[in-house]
Order: sequence, then structure tokens, then C-alpha cells
Amino acid sequence: MITSKPIKIVSTGKYLPAIVSSIELEKKHGIPLGWSSEHSGVTTRHIATTESNGYMGARAAEQSLDHAKMILADIDMIISASGTFDYPIPNQASIIKSEMKDGYTCHIPAIDINSTCLSFITAFEYAANILNGKQYKNVLIISSEIASKGLNPDNWETLTLFGDGAAAVIVSYDETSESTYFKGGQQTYSEGVYHTIIEGGGNQNPIKEHAYHQELHSFKMNGKHLLKMAIQKIPVFIDWFFKDLDINIYSVDVIVPHQASKLGLSIFNKLYDIEDKKVKKTLASYGNCIAASIPLTLINAIESGEISRGDQCLLVGTSAGFSIGGVLLKY
Amino acid sequence: MITSKPIKIVSTGKYLPAIVSSIELEKKHGIPLGWSSEHSGVTTRHIATTESNGYMGARAAEQSLDHAKMILADIDMIISASGTFDYPIPNQASIIKSEMKDGYTCHIPAIDINSTCLSFITAFEYAANILNGKQYKNVLIISSEIASKGLNPDNWETLTLFGDGAAAVIVSYDETSESTYFKGGQQTYSEGVYHTIIEGGGNQNPIKEHAYHQELHSFKMNGKHLLKMAIQKIPVFIDWFFKDLDINIYSVDVIVPHQASKLGLSIFNKLYDIEDKKVKKTLASYGNCIAASIPLTLINAIESGEISRGDQCLLVGTSAGFSIGGVLLKY
Repeated sequence: MITSKPIKIVSTGKYLPAIVSSIELEKKHGIPLGWSSEHSGVTTRHIATTESNGYMGARAAEQSLDHAKMILADIDMIISASGTFDYPIPNQASIIKSEMKDGYTCHIPAIDINSTCLSFITAFEYAANILNGKQYKNVLIISSEIASKGLNPDNWETLTLFGDGAAAVIVSYDETSESTYFKGGQQTYSEGVYHTIIEGGGNQNPIKEHAYHQELHSFKMNGKHLLKMAIQKIPVFIDWFFKDLDINIYSVDVIVPHQASKLGLSIFNKLYDIEDKKVKKTLASYGNCIAASIPLTLINAIESGEISRGDQCLLVGTSAGFSIGGVLLKY
Repeated sequence: MITSKPIKIVSTGKYLPAIVSSIELEKKHGIPLGWSSEHSGVTTRHIATTESNGYMGARAAEQSLDHAKMILADIDMIISASGTFDYPIPNQASIIKSEMKDGYTCHIPAIDINSTCLSFITAFEYAANILNGKQYKNVLIISSEIASKGLNPDNWETLTLFGDGAAAVIVSYDETSESTYFKGGQQTYSEGVYHTIIEGGGNQNPIKEHAYHQELHSFKMNGKHLLKMAIQKIPVFIDWFFKDLDINIYSVDVIVPHQASKLGLSIFNKLYDIEDKKVKKTLASYGNCIAASIPLTLINAIESGEISRGDQCLLVGTSAGFSIGGVLLKY
């Protein structure tokens, strides 16, 4: 039942806005110095100032094209895989494409996939399925997130945890390569549907009827419940994910987890007897960048040589909804 | 290059909130009686009162399961394919699933796809690609839209055009069936990226900094530009879409277009010498229901016997961004 498709990550790109240290953030918001590193595990994060989701996504995407020595015309589909957006309409991929070099002259499809923090995983699974070497040879996945604008300054837990940033990955169908896509999958556990929420701004609490209110329009998460669910459900998910594969959680070379939180990140090492260095971490320097966390961590590990061609990698994470999802590939 | 995959639309369901006639709407908003039918071509539409996107979507989805004599556990993935949403976080599919019978006990993945009005087309292409008779046997696609909450009461063109409603379609991998998926595809023409927009509510004009303003937080469309682009680009798209197929626009049995507008709907008959009855229309009774328009029109044609098993159907439409997309299938 292994899919084993010749799918290759050809290149990557990223864009990070200005860096903001935890000390700066703590001083600005009257948080005790050191609180952020201790509680959230975040020392620095990047925060957008003038940048939009579209701008950051376009820059990351162009860098991935440059790295691959490709132009936009070589791409057959753009997927925006993000939880945040510039405008409710049009979709984010259309905006990113319009801000890219050659965006106005290439008429490739621009679609959005949203499974909040798992959006990159879902998009990767889609790309791996749609890529066929014919109509779809190369797909460009972009996760561009601005978390900072939806944070409640009085909620230290979320204020110090999240960061902004964009990551782009070009995924290709390449029969000449040893790179392989094995499997993607997700499970959604509805008992946690509202453990993470922004209550205002959609059809349930429309802006017309609900003026700005810090609680209503800010991101909220029930950290305790989320951690409990993650500890309970991750083993269920991992058993389900690997049950029909020859590979198991111990035999994979690298785990690239969503950088959900300090405690969330420690789950793999707690649940499984896995060497710490196998589990890649960028939380301290980037914070939780929603859907951009997994690709940014993947890119960091590739750039630093911690992932080499031939390595079996598990990308895995949790998201609002409450979902757990993963993708298994040979880089 | 034809994909020709044994993909079958197994069943459908829908949910329509209370009906509102154009006369009622015109009286309420001081619009001259008859304006709506004449200009928008819409005589009645449905408008949500107490319903949420999640509620409508869940009811449509449950109906599609009943029609198929299936239960939620038979489904391998839920895709919410919509342009509007209950909350910015979590994603809409998670909410729909949580409101369905057995939603809390079935842990199937719940993901969102958004290409605004083309979301159902994109989701169908996704489903057709991911369905393999193994990990994914049955996919449930739901388009649940509440357009009414984002309309500007002073803009008669949009106020009288849009309607609310939900449609659900179960798509299966079935080698024993003659039903076939031939092709899906989309082109995005970025020169029209902002021809349709809601400016406020995302990261570009966050609610925190921009209090409710009718213009800023309502749906806007440049009808003239959109129509001009559609007339210009639809032939380009149709040529591209059919170029490697044995089927052409004249040989398909049924065209199910997005119910964009009265003039938009007339384009196919103007550009191509196609019998009027081949092009299915629900605009007069439902209005433009964003991504739910195509599946609602498809469902109507199936229920009324205008589409029979074996018919070759082209689902096709335009969306914000500006995109044109289509799916070709044998029902």
C-alpha cells in the first residue's frame, strides 16, 4: 500500500521580516524579562512591519525559483498553504502570484489549501498526488504567515510564542531521481474543534455586528487541553500512519515537527525513545510560524546539512480543528 | 494525456435556508420593484438567518450520506470548498465535521480548499487525484456559503445577485463503474487579481486598526471588467483545456457553469453555438452562491433528470483572482 512516487523537493526559499528579540518584546509589553525564553522557549522571532502575506510569499517563492534555476513559467501550479491571509477575497495564492516576477504573464493556477498549522503537509500530499510528469510537472507550495496581527498583547503565552515568516518549496515529478514520496495522511479529532480559535471576523461574529474587541478578534488557544490531546492522540496517529509501511517512527532519519510550543515539541522525545538530534527545532529562533513552521524548519535542516539526499524524513504536526497530519518522504 | 480515472459521483445533498423573493428584498432596501429580475436575473434566493456555514454544510453532507446509504465512517476525507467561513480559525471543514452525526467519533481528515467561486472545481480535481481505492476510496466535498453577510446594502448589483446555500457531493473511486474523470484544470490571470475583493478583515486592513466600514468590509466587484475579462479569456481557457482531449466543447452533453451573473451566464451561448438547454442555469432561483453555485446547479440537473449516467459534463466557471477553471467528467 506504499505509494512510492518519484517526487522530489527540488529547491526551497524563505523570507523572514525584521527580527525581534524576546527582551525587546518583554520590555514593550511589560512582561518580566526572561519570561518568554522560560515559558515559550522562544528567544527571537521575526515580525512583519510593512510586509504583507503576499509580499513575503512572493519573495520566498522567487528565491526558490532562483535556487532551482527555474522561472515561473516552469511551474504548473501555485499552492498557498497558510492559515492567515491578506484579504478575505481573493484567495492568497492569487495575491502571491500577482506579486511575483512574471506573475501577470504566466497563467498557472493559484489555489489555497487551509488546514491551519498543517496546511503545508496537506499541500505537500496534494502536490505529490497531482504531480504526474504531464499536466503537472512542478508545483510551488508557499506558506506565508503573519501571526503577529492576530495576537492579544495581554495574553503572554501566545504573544511570545508566535512569529511571522514565509517558506516556499518546489516539488517535482522526477523519475530520474531517488527522491520518493511514501505517504501523507491526517486525522481530525473533533473533540478539540474549538481548542484554538479566532472567534470574530467570519460569518459567526461578523465585523458589521461586532466591533473590534481584543478577546473576540485575537487568537486564543487552550494550551493545556491541546497538550493533553497531543500526548493522547499522537501515538494513535503514528500507529495508524505507519501500520502499512515498512518504515517505522524509529527508522526514519529525520523528524521535522510543527513548532507548536516548547512542551509540544518535547512530545516526540517523551513518547518515543528517539535521539534528540533527529527531531529538528527552530522554535527558539523563529517561534511558532503557523503553517510556515514545518517548511522553515525543513529548509533550515537542509541548508545546515542536517538533512541529506536519501534521508527518510517525517514531516508531522498538529493543527486547529484538532488535527494531526504527516508526510513521509525520501529527500 | 487523458487521465481517465474511474471516479464516480455517488450521491449529492443540499441545504437551502429560507427563500427571499426579489420583491421582498426590493421593498426592504428601497430598490425599484422589478430591478433585481431585470438587472441581476435573480427572482428568488435563499438567505441564512440562524444558520452558520458549518450548520448548512453539515446538513447537506448528511443528506448526501443518506442518499448514498453511507455513514461518515465510509468517508476517507472531508473537503470544505468555499469562499466564506464561520471563523478565521479553525478551518471550515473541521467545523462542518464537528457538527455532523458521528463527527466526534470518526477521525477522518478535514481540510479546506479555497479558490473562491471555483473552490468546488479545485476540490473535485483534488479528490479525483487523491482517490485511489486504497487509502482514499470516498471523498466528501462540501461547499457551504453565506454570501449575504458580506454584502453592501447600498450596492444593488451585488445585494440582489448573491444567495446562500450548501451543496455536498460524494466522489468515489469505483473501477466497476463507467463514470470517469477526464481532466481538471485552472488558469489564473493576475491582471484581474483585485477585480473582486473584500478589503477589510485580513492582515492588510486588520479589524483592530479598521473599524467596520460598509465599503471596506463588503464584497466589491468590478462587473464591467470581470465581464470583459471573461469574454476575452474563456476562449483562451477552453482552447487550452480541450487541446489534448478527444472531446470538445461542442461534443460535451451538459455544461454546468458557475452562476456568476446574468450576463456572465450568457457568455457560453454567445461565444459558442451551443443549444441553450445544454447550459444549466439556477441563477433565477438561487442567485450566485459563490462556490456552492456549481454543485447546486449540478444537483438540480441530476435531480430533474437533465443529467443522466453516461453524460459527459463540463463543470466550468470564473473566480476572484481572476481564474477560470473546469472539470470534465462522465457522470
